[in-house]
Amino acid sequence: MISFRETLDLLLAAVPVADSERVPLEEAGGRVLRQEIKADRDFPPFDRVMMDGFAMRAGNFKKGRDFRVVGTAPAGSPVEELPVAAMSCVEVMTGAPLPLGADCIVPVEETTRIGETIRISPAFDVMPRRFVHAAGSDARTGEVLLAPGILLGSREIGVAASCGAAWIEVSKLPRIHILATGDELVAVDEVPQPHQIRQSNASAIACALQRAGYPAAASARLRDDPAESAVALRSALKESDWLIITGAVSKGARDFVPALLDSLGCRRLFHGVAQRPGKPAGCWLGPGGQIVMALPGNPVSALTGLHAFVLPALAVASGRPLPKPRLVVSAGRFDGLPGMTQHLPVKLGDDGRAQAAPTGNSGDFIGLLKSDGFVTIPPRGGIDAAFPYTPWF
Amino acid sequence: MISFRETLDLLLAAVPVADSERVPLEEAGGRVLRQEIKADRDFPPFDRVMMDGFAMRAGNFKKGRDFRVVGTAPAGSPVEELPVAAMSCVEVMTGAPLPLGADCIVPVEETTRIGETIRISPAFDVMPRRFVHAAGSDARTGEVLLAPGILLGSREIGVAASCGAAWIEVSKLPRIHILATGDELVAVDEVPQPHQIRQSNASAIACALQRAGYPAAASARLRDDPAESAVALRSALKESDWLIITGAVSKGARDFVPALLDSLGCRRLFHGVAQRPGKPAGCWLGPGGQIVMALPGNPVSALTGLHAFVLPALAVASGRPLPKPRLVVSAGRFDGLPGMTQHLPVKLGDDGRAQAAPTGNSGDFIGLLKSDGFVTIPPRGGIDAAFPYTPWF
Repeated sequence: MISFRETLDLLLAAVPVADSERVPLEEAGGRVLRQEIKADRDFPPFDRVMMDGFAMRAGNFKKGRDFRVVGTAPAGSPVEELPVAAMSCVEVMTGAPLPLGADCIVPVEETTRIGETIRISPAFDVMPRRFVHAAGSDARTGEVLLAPGILLGSREIGVAASCGAAWIEVSKLPRIHILATGDELVAVDEVPQPHQIRQSNASAIACALQRAGYPAAASARLRDDPAESAVALRSALKESDWLIITGAVSKGARDFVPALLDSLGCRRLFHGVAQRPGKPAGCWLGPGGQIVMALPGNPVSALTGLHAFVLPALAVASGRPLPKPRLVVSAGRFDGLPGMTQHLPVKLGDDGRAQAAPTGNSGDFIGLLKSDGFVTIPPRGGIDAAFPYTPWF
Repeated sequence: MISFRETLDLLLAAVPVADSERVPLEEAGGRVLRQEIKADRDFPPFDRVMMDGFAMRAGNFKKGRDFRVVGTAPAGSPVEELPVAAMSCVEVMTGAPLPLGADCIVPVEETTRIGETIRISPAFDVMPRRFVHAAGSDARTGEVLLAPGILLGSREIGVAASCGAAWIEVSKLPRIHILATGDELVAVDEVPQPHQIRQSNASAIACALQRAGYPAAASARLRDDPAESAVALRSALKESDWLIITGAVSKGARDFVPALLDSLGCRRLFHGVAQRPGKPAGCWLGPGGQIVMALPGNPVSALTGLHAFVLPALAVASGRPLPKPRLVVSAGRFDGLPGMTQHLPVKLGDDGRAQAAPTGNSGDFIGLLKSDGFVTIPPRGGIDAAFPYTPWF
């Protein structure tokens, strides 16, 4: 059977990168940048005063001599000019441009005001460029500050704002459809018969997608009926870039999903993965390039498969480089499974080490409540080793 | 001056817990639960078949004897009854209720079908309860599965769905207003004069809030004019639960915010914090219990203050326990600052250790692009020590 690593590589190589669109800056947070953002001016654009105080020429300074305050330069005022008179200074505020002719700042708390003059504390060293943030020292005009493929967080949005990027080119968000199969499933607001259960996979998956930055996905339940499901699948393929199916993907008599996807013109990328949970998982490419991920109906398998396959693939599809896994060290030996990758639910201790979580092994979401995420353990396992860790969304 | 730890404690003790509201399950992801979610039935609700295979009575099993397949029990069908005839079995699917009278499952891959009978692989041990997920073994009817104060992630939403919680009581989202002060500031879509800069704090802060799960905040620019700002502040206080002000909070001539807040009937919780960056930060309580956080205008100070004060306080206000800090170990010595807490931008290495990031110390967002977050270092510092780490949102 094909390994987890190989199936993930197949999937990541197959995902098409999304188109881009322009959105207003306020909506760009959490999206993936698809253009360069360049400095449209020097940063800072002027020699910037870093402290409230007095701007002067350092070369004029002599211990014990007072300076005459000849003007005020608050932030937001045009650049002042320091008079040429040797012992003059200009009162300045943090963020103001350094007055022309001045070359240093003496902070207000290092001075004593005496009428129209100031006396500088004897302990303070007046030095050229002191408390002056030099024009262009953060970035030069034209410098690329943000490159395509980055996730736009608060700092990047701040940088884009500074550069005047009121609209930004970002990756389009994928249209995602979740289809949960199973005759035993009823809606959340229904009262199940003794042999029925409420659907929960689609709700959990939609929540994880949304928390990972993807839009609320459409979802539907499918009966274990190939003909009826064919109609639903065909229409879902039309309206989606991604399809996530749970259940009916194994090799049993009622597992109609693989054959149905084949018959709808989807190309099988893989079906069956040497991993636990989630051995029956499969991936198909739709006729229009859609990614169809078929995950087992068992809730733990479904949610694990979403995190292990779909979220990394969605990141790559949005134009990001594959996010580096976060490594956590195991608290003790994780044996792994012979010939199989194991996605093991873990709890992170106060020391940051991963311990196997007491999930009860039931396959139900209830069992996952005591875990923080899962580590992915290769077949050989390891003791006190660092494993890729995926937190639950 | 009052310490970072003390000011944070003051703030956390002062924040009022938000009211709650009922939202549909699909909108509850990322919100904070304010009710108990109890198991409305046993989980699983019936002895659940864990493998596609055959249900039988283990006591009947004898090596070499074949079983007669007398029925089929797919998932989603009412409970079957196993005929009393000794060597009969029922074909079952994963997720189906165990037929009455049966007590174990033999997986299909451990059998060979011969007409109407199956032969069990000699290597397989037929044992009572094998591959049967016992009714009530995950949870008993009435058991509290989700307690108030938890953040609703995908697993919790899955559990709530299973229990029929189509509507959920969660904390109301706060109404947040961001006010950026400064005569030097122009809008993002304006072309600044040489002495002006574009506002970026409000954009970055709104993005961080949104990525941390709080709704898009309203924002406005304020001129350094107390009278004009009083009008804006008064109306922002009316419309908000939280106010975040950047700039004009220090003790200089133009720092009008502290006196203005005092004059508007806000109660000073603290003003001035022994920390860098962000020494001038202050917090006021509005007349209606609003939290007013005043942060310095320097972008790094503003964003650090948002992460260090506002995000933890918002979590507590939403009814969560204070999130435990993630600790990271320093790569080498972090000296700290004499008598001051330092929030030091760091990069996390591949080994998970924090290294001081090359921020350039300019105070601009550009300098933060090379960091992943910051560690909070107490005045004494430390070598190879574990420090609370806050990733940038």
